[in-house]
Amino acid sequence: MSTTRDAALRYAADHRSHYRGKLTELLAIPSISTAAEHDADVQRAAEWLSAELSRLGADNVEILETEGKPIVWGELAASAAQAPTVLIYGHYDVQPVDPVELWHSDPFVATERDGSLFARGASDMKGQLMATLAALEAVGNGGQYPVNVRFLLEGEEEIGSPSLESSIKRYADRFRADVCLNPDTGMIAPDSPTITYGLRGLAYFEVRLRGPAHDLHSGIFGGAVENPAHVLCDLLAGLHDEEGRVTLPGFYDRVRPLAQDERDELARLPLSDTDFLQQTGVPALYGEAGYTTAERIGVRPTLEINGMISGFTGQGAKTVLPATATAKISTRLVPDQDPAEVRDMLLEYVRTYAPETVTYEVEVMALAPALITERDNPGTRAMARALETVWGKAPLFKREGGSVPVSTYLQRALGIPSVLTGFGLPDDNLHAPDEKLDLATWYRGIDALIHFLHNAADGGLR
Amino acid sequence: MSTTRDAALRYAADHRSHYRGKLTELLAIPSISTAAEHDADVQRAAEWLSAELSRLGADNVEILETEGKPIVWGELAASAAQAPTVLIYGHYDVQPVDPVELWHSDPFVATERDGSLFARGASDMKGQLMATLAALEAVGNGGQYPVNVRFLLEGEEEIGSPSLESSIKRYADRFRADVCLNPDTGMIAPDSPTITYGLRGLAYFEVRLRGPAHDLHSGIFGGAVENPAHVLCDLLAGLHDEEGRVTLPGFYDRVRPLAQDERDELARLPLSDTDFLQQTGVPALYGEAGYTTAERIGVRPTLEINGMISGFTGQGAKTVLPATATAKISTRLVPDQDPAEVRDMLLEYVRTYAPETVTYEVEVMALAPALITERDNPGTRAMARALETVWGKAPLFKREGGSVPVSTYLQRALGIPSVLTGFGLPDDNLHAPDEKLDLATWYRGIDALIHFLHNAADGGLR
Repeated sequence: MSTTRDAALRYAADHRSHYRGKLTELLAIPSISTAAEHDADVQRAAEWLSAELSRLGADNVEILETEGKPIVWGELAASAAQAPTVLIYGHYDVQPVDPVELWHSDPFVATERDGSLFARGASDMKGQLMATLAALEAVGNGGQYPVNVRFLLEGEEEIGSPSLESSIKRYADRFRADVCLNPDTGMIAPDSPTITYGLRGLAYFEVRLRGPAHDLHSGIFGGAVENPAHVLCDLLAGLHDEEGRVTLPGFYDRVRPLAQDERDELARLPLSDTDFLQQTGVPALYGEAGYTTAERIGVRPTLEINGMISGFTGQGAKTVLPATATAKISTRLVPDQDPAEVRDMLLEYVRTYAPETVTYEVEVMALAPALITERDNPGTRAMARALETVWGKAPLFKREGGSVPVSTYLQRALGIPSVLTGFGLPDDNLHAPDEKLDLATWYRGIDALIHFLHNAADGGLR
Repeated sequence: MSTTRDAALRYAADHRSHYRGKLTELLAIPSISTAAEHDADVQRAAEWLSAELSRLGADNVEILETEGKPIVWGELAASAAQAPTVLIYGHYDVQPVDPVELWHSDPFVATERDGSLFARGASDMKGQLMATLAALEAVGNGGQYPVNVRFLLEGEEEIGSPSLESSIKRYADRFRADVCLNPDTGMIAPDSPTITYGLRGLAYFEVRLRGPAHDLHSGIFGGAVENPAHVLCDLLAGLHDEEGRVTLPGFYDRVRPLAQDERDELARLPLSDTDFLQQTGVPALYGEAGYTTAERIGVRPTLEINGMISGFTGQGAKTVLPATATAKISTRLVPDQDPAEVRDMLLEYVRTYAPETVTYEVEVMALAPALITERDNPGTRAMARALETVWGKAPLFKREGGSVPVSTYLQRALGIPSVLTGFGLPDDNLHAPDEKLDLATWYRGIDALIHFLHNAADGGLR
């Protein structure tokens, strides 16, 4: 028999500093998946996690080879024969840390300030992953678990999980489960436990333009050749109209219309424009005409410049006419947009509007579809009850702007529904300097995951 | 008595390797004026030059204190009492070297390949300055010069000479002369000696936009806040119309109309579009409708993006919504545009079109007017004869796209006309990787300068 619910909760309460120490160990590994120079760190994070799974009593722990970054796999056996199986999803890779000079402490030395732990990955999502392992340690104290558990811990989520779908198909038998627990989404506020039932997809591109063979003197040649930075600005400026809509022909054709009941529900979310102004620090909000802020980030597709560079960007005034201009741009997609169609629209746009004065390349860096899960399934009910038990109120259901490709892949390839939740907060500075994790909320999250595992065992998931 | 013309030419022929060694010494000093970390190198170049002037027998060599980089000054006395005075202008500062990985040899170790010397500043303009000192060494062998010589060697030309005009006024008595020899312009081709009689002015700006207080997750916030990179692209794209004209209201109002005879003369320059395609490597030329390439770079004003940066520009795909977006932009001005008016137009443009979703700053980094010199004056005639003697053909007269603020300041403050020439070639990669100097042309240039100094003494300059 596994430990009782109460015993598990007591164990968790008594081991907070142990949990935090484990999280600090994982946060110290700079497992940045976007940069090849961190490949060894990504591998090291995978090995650290496989050791943790073994410590929890997992059988057959493996670091699965993939076409991309490795997947950490293992399984924990339930004490009861008929217990359901939960697939735990997590990603152990993190975003880059630049501009590193804006951090107030080393991004890879977890540092507590004002009740929060600051480090890259603290919230997205090493903290969420370690909350799950902490809950398992509590419920499985003694090596017996209320449910069967399998793991799918990937190392390339932050680059759009390019090889994940093929890995899920390749290792399908290892991942079969009744439900996937995916704690990679966040809460609306510390007192508002949240289940996410919709996620935006992602298509990510790098557009590289070249004009002259090398940088030119802007006085001697300026006026006689077209500046690739101008061409890039023209191309990027043309991607939105004056109402904030994306101009790619057909971009909105497959967007599922927003039903009035869903609109009403989104309007009830405690997300005020004042909160958004405060969280972002912008002088004024902005977005597609005809939609609220919650709708703009949850149910409408977007296109953003993630980065761009051209010419001389150092200190001072260099009179150069740049040879190249490069932008990273990404679209967030909603049901039922097809990432491959959007890719084709962008390629066609560049082909049509890039003038003969430049040559260009477009690299497709990620393509992942959006997801809407059924809100009424056993896994979601088990999670909703768990969150209500800990917070004393029913969770909110929201659609979120981010992208979690794995949920789509698991549904499509193996028919496994996902429960999407998490214990990060809107001001956690995800992907930005001073990423943090609110520790009080994190400890409540561990309790909620303990309840979820017991609820799943008690109520079944099939 | 100074040496004879023939003796000076023989001296020059016999001392080529000595001249080249001196140039190599100066090229080894990374006197980059745009970067504060090179201030000591700028100072070192000034000291190296003051030692050279002393070696040539200059009296009263001084490193003049200015509001910016120091000016090297000195004078050489003519052997004849009534000899005219030539002010030698030069700048000892150079452009930055990035992207340094595109150089095929160290930018500060002069390296010969295929008859050219590769180094930052080899052509612009340490090579030109050292050709002038080489000619002086040849004509003054023995310490007696055919003309009086004064020097104005500045260290901030590559940043738009911000303090030069006030320095010229402050030290006016030291700079008085009959003519200024300014070898900072180039040749149209190796067999086409060239005198430049028109130069474009320069106004240089950095535009900095800020949206969010810090970088945001593009999934969670994308669609709800305006991306400052989009705003920057909109602003920059709006600065040109579809005909390649600058849209700033009033920008062309003061542009002096191009007379038909000047148009005819520009059409006779041996500058084919094929040459331009070959020199720049662009797939196709481009420019303001209604003007030829020579007109576009010589007599029409332009506006170029010199650099821009926003968000994540490293390897891979980071889904960030940038907090800031920055561009360096500059306009090349022609007579009779007023740089201060153009600055006000740009400030007004940003003020008008920057949306309330961002805050902005505009830094004015340089403001210099354009110049047209009289083509028929004694200095120009002395130089034209010198070039014809060495090349066996009359020089071409051109207006050039670059900016040489000093000529305007000398004319305005002291009434000194300038003779603008030089021995750099169009493919010298000024301001770019692999800057070079064609050595055969450089040696001919030294000969031409020897003839110029003797012509000036023989024919007078007043």
